[in-house]
Amino acid sequence: MKIAIYGYGNLGKGVECAVEHAPDAELVGVFTRRAPETVKTHSDVPVYNSSKLSEFKDKIDVLIICGGSATDLPEMTPALAADFNVLDSFDTHATIPEHFDAVDRVAKESGHIALISAGWDPGMFSLNRLYASAVLPQGKDYTFWGRGVSQGHSDAIRRIDGVLDARQYTVPVPAALEAVRAGENPTLSVRQKHTRECYVVAEDGADLARIEQEIKTMPNYFADYDTTVNFISMEELRRDHAGIPHGGSVIRTGTTGWNNENKHVIEYSLKLDSNPEFTSSVLVAFARAIYKMHKRGINGCHTVFDVAPADLSPLSAEELRAHML
Amino acid sequence: MKIAIYGYGNLGKGVECAVEHAPDAELVGVFTRRAPETVKTHSDVPVYNSSKLSEFKDKIDVLIICGGSATDLPEMTPALAADFNVLDSFDTHATIPEHFDAVDRVAKESGHIALISAGWDPGMFSLNRLYASAVLPQGKDYTFWGRGVSQGHSDAIRRIDGVLDARQYTVPVPAALEAVRAGENPTLSVRQKHTRECYVVAEDGADLARIEQEIKTMPNYFADYDTTVNFISMEELRRDHAGIPHGGSVIRTGTTGWNNENKHVIEYSLKLDSNPEFTSSVLVAFARAIYKMHKRGINGCHTVFDVAPADLSPLSAEELRAHML
Repeated sequence: MKIAIYGYGNLGKGVECAVEHAPDAELVGVFTRRAPETVKTHSDVPVYNSSKLSEFKDKIDVLIICGGSATDLPEMTPALAADFNVLDSFDTHATIPEHFDAVDRVAKESGHIALISAGWDPGMFSLNRLYASAVLPQGKDYTFWGRGVSQGHSDAIRRIDGVLDARQYTVPVPAALEAVRAGENPTLSVRQKHTRECYVVAEDGADLARIEQEIKTMPNYFADYDTTVNFISMEELRRDHAGIPHGGSVIRTGTTGWNNENKHVIEYSLKLDSNPEFTSSVLVAFARAIYKMHKRGINGCHTVFDVAPADLSPLSAEELRAHML
Repeated sequence: MKIAIYGYGNLGKGVECAVEHAPDAELVGVFTRRAPETVKTHSDVPVYNSSKLSEFKDKIDVLIICGGSATDLPEMTPALAADFNVLDSFDTHATIPEHFDAVDRVAKESGHIALISAGWDPGMFSLNRLYASAVLPQGKDYTFWGRGVSQGHSDAIRRIDGVLDARQYTVPVPAALEAVRAGENPTLSVRQKHTRECYVVAEDGADLARIEQEIKTMPNYFADYDTTVNFISMEELRRDHAGIPHGGSVIRTGTTGWNNENKHVIEYSLKLDSNPEFTSSVLVAFARAIYKMHKRGINGCHTVFDVAPADLSPLSAEELRAHML
């Protein structure tokens, strides 16, 4: 299948690498809103300005859109579904229904297939919430994130006056995780589930107490959490916090039996060295799936919930039954 | 949807309870090869002799076949697919392809839908092997079982002369689990992955040394493992080993990046108080799915790999997108 990438940030770079490692995919090109000559790809695949996309209408099986969820994807994914099979990692949970509807309308009209919100949350975590709740209808779901870098929270710290750079880690509270895993069904506040650890490089002579106070009281981002702030040097930041690790766990605890006497715990967990590269790998697997589904005549917008797992694999149905079942 | 159960052992009893807890399922009856008056159901649902099944041709949406994989299911599932949508938990991994073909032939001819090998392994574990390998093509899979009761191994001990009753636990080796979780990609022999713990009630005056020796050297079942044998009283067995817990983990470790420099660990794990009740809960979720698929005109044999996750849930596609994605 022929893949193209729209947007060449961390995610686009991850997709480039994941396509290279897929046995059945080739990369047609990278499309960017920047001047193409300023963008150098790792694999030497050609870079085009996004205005050239219309020339590739029949040369791309799936276009993977690697834009931001805040402003890029709500515009891009519906617009591009007019001419291409498209895939995105839209992750603003609250507005998924309207994004879905906008993409679905265009894709159905154009006869293309689209899949939104692939990745790990939304994505693999969502799948595990769904499977677990279908299997254990009497139960309770918990999602923990981390330990990992939250890019949005790191950015929020960087916008504070006197801050040169910052890295924020989201960390699950061990006691909360233990209580959930033990099947205790605790009711947990935001503060009881996660803590936030910040590593901040401040300008020389900056008022550190004021920066720390601004971080800890920032509404939505930090005010509802127990937050620790560590001031470090730029050298330490580069040496110790260069990666973009993440992960987490989806846990469902539930019961069966006439008197709910039997407890069960289902846990799906991820430990990822590179959040964008793992997300990219999920995207390429779902690109394969929608490519197969479109060949069977399916169009319109879909999510990870609508994809039969067999479609994600390069193996045949016979091979899967013989070796993976 | 109207469900019927064929076979009323531990699994059939679990299905009865799981159907009761499903918001959208009702139980039509239990079918048995025994004299129906000797079988008393928990929910007072009627019990019929299996010879009466033909009278229920249009009254059952999905027939869940709760028989053994060794001799029952290879006969029953293809035969019953002539008249019903059928579901089984066939778990002899090596002969899944031929069982699939036998069921598929009949189901396609009769226009019914069938799904084989639902449960947790095969079943939920298989799904997780597939998802993880599709997402991380460069990696390695590990499946650990336990700590849990292996019914086949317990039965094998009971057949030894001088043994009154026995319970066998399969236990993953902690060091092996740790090495896998740490991404060390170890190559593990059968002995290095699991140990076997046996609790045996012997007849008065039996030769305990001989029994222990017969267990530890039993080919296929115990000879390849480090096995410990504990002789206990019948009272202790009933008090401490009455449950049928099980569980385990499917772990895939893999890498991404141009130089495979980023490691990732995906783990799916189950801790189950009751193996048959959890398996039954999986069966009822997949019964819902094939019922929906058959209404869309799909027939023939399928596996868990062919089911879009959304079909497992009683919630609508809109509800799933809004609340679970």
